[in-house]
Amino acid sequence: MAEGKISTAVIKRLPRYYRHLGELLESGVERISSGELSTKMKVTASQIRQDLNHFGGFGQQGYGYNVQHLYTEIGKILGLDRKYNLIIIGAGNLGRAIANYANFEKRGFVITGVFDVNPKIVGTKLKDITIMDLCEIETFAAENKIDIAALTIPKTQAVEVADRLVKLGVKAFWNFAHTDLNVPEEVIVESVHLSESLMRISYKLVNEDKTGEI
Amino acid sequence: MAEGKISTAVIKRLPRYYRHLGELLESGVERISSGELSTKMKVTASQIRQDLNHFGGFGQQGYGYNVQHLYTEIGKILGLDRKYNLIIIGAGNLGRAIANYANFEKRGFVITGVFDVNPKIVGTKLKDITIMDLCEIETFAAENKIDIAALTIPKTQAVEVADRLVKLGVKAFWNFAHTDLNVPEEVIVESVHLSESLMRISYKLVNEDKTGEI
Repeated sequence: MAEGKISTAVIKRLPRYYRHLGELLESGVERISSGELSTKMKVTASQIRQDLNHFGGFGQQGYGYNVQHLYTEIGKILGLDRKYNLIIIGAGNLGRAIANYANFEKRGFVITGVFDVNPKIVGTKLKDITIMDLCEIETFAAENKIDIAALTIPKTQAVEVADRLVKLGVKAFWNFAHTDLNVPEEVIVESVHLSESLMRISYKLVNEDKTGEI
Repeated sequence: MAEGKISTAVIKRLPRYYRHLGELLESGVERISSGELSTKMKVTASQIRQDLNHFGGFGQQGYGYNVQHLYTEIGKILGLDRKYNLIIIGAGNLGRAIANYANFEKRGFVITGVFDVNPKIVGTKLKDITIMDLCEIETFAAENKIDIAALTIPKTQAVEVADRLVKLGVKAFWNFAHTDLNVPEEVIVESVHLSESLMRISYKLVNEDKTGEI
């Protein structure tokens, strides 16, 4: 399976492995058994072994996993050994929260531009970046490579702005607008629908479905 | 199956149905076939029929689904016909983004308190709510029912604050901190891990895995 197609379910779990391994590293833990990792992550040990086997398996019988090695390898699989230029469309609270989240930059996601349409905030600074008018996006894109565009704008504008960015060659969207984007199939869309997340809580509260973290 | 246990996968899809039906209502659409809904949602028609059958099936042969009825019924299943008291711990950009998102209130999630530890912002207003010091949370909880606590605080504080809130009877957390919470199994935790979401984009960019929306 090491060379095979990796299932979406496994891919979805990888960032969580990466986070937990990072926490272990911060605590000075050098190696860990699948059993210990299982307790920490509340996933079965066999699930962990199975997941990590997809990547050739980094564990050794009787030793367990070397935390630093596994962290580095999973980081590479996740593409965290590279740099990505991230632009933010919408400098409201959510856009600001993302811009101010230093950990993203540490992991290679460099914010290279912030855009808005509000004349009151265009020209002001967000961290060390001057917020540009959205009408400058074409010029910006001609001069700067954009890897990922975060859309922290209302849903009424998101679809149109995404279309415009696709024409400028943007291949990946981090979509916070409460709508689907109508982009070509080959374009990556990762949506964070906060309302839907909240509804999963109300569903569980009403149905007293006590399945814990989802 | 109408009375049976509904799978997590179906529950995860319900908010998306709710969103699309809401969009149809806004556009004045009164009824829709599973085929049309399928095109709009980019899900197979048989998946739609199967999902909605879990709830007794609201469609009629040759007529399709009554959009308003289906919207209302799914809303009820999601518990959106009730009110929830939501408190926000952490009045940074992310906390503010949530507090300012009017749609949450429209759906029954009423923000009843905002807490922070920063003396510079405690006492200031966020919307019409005066930000309280986190040390007042015990008094607040004694006098006000808290249904959901949104944690928009750094991971170093999240676990401890969650423990404290569990002791005060909070049964559900909307966790934005980049860590797992160590809460009892019966407590609901819905996590929004933004870093992990971003890593799924980099994974796809690097692996050129063009699966579209995930």
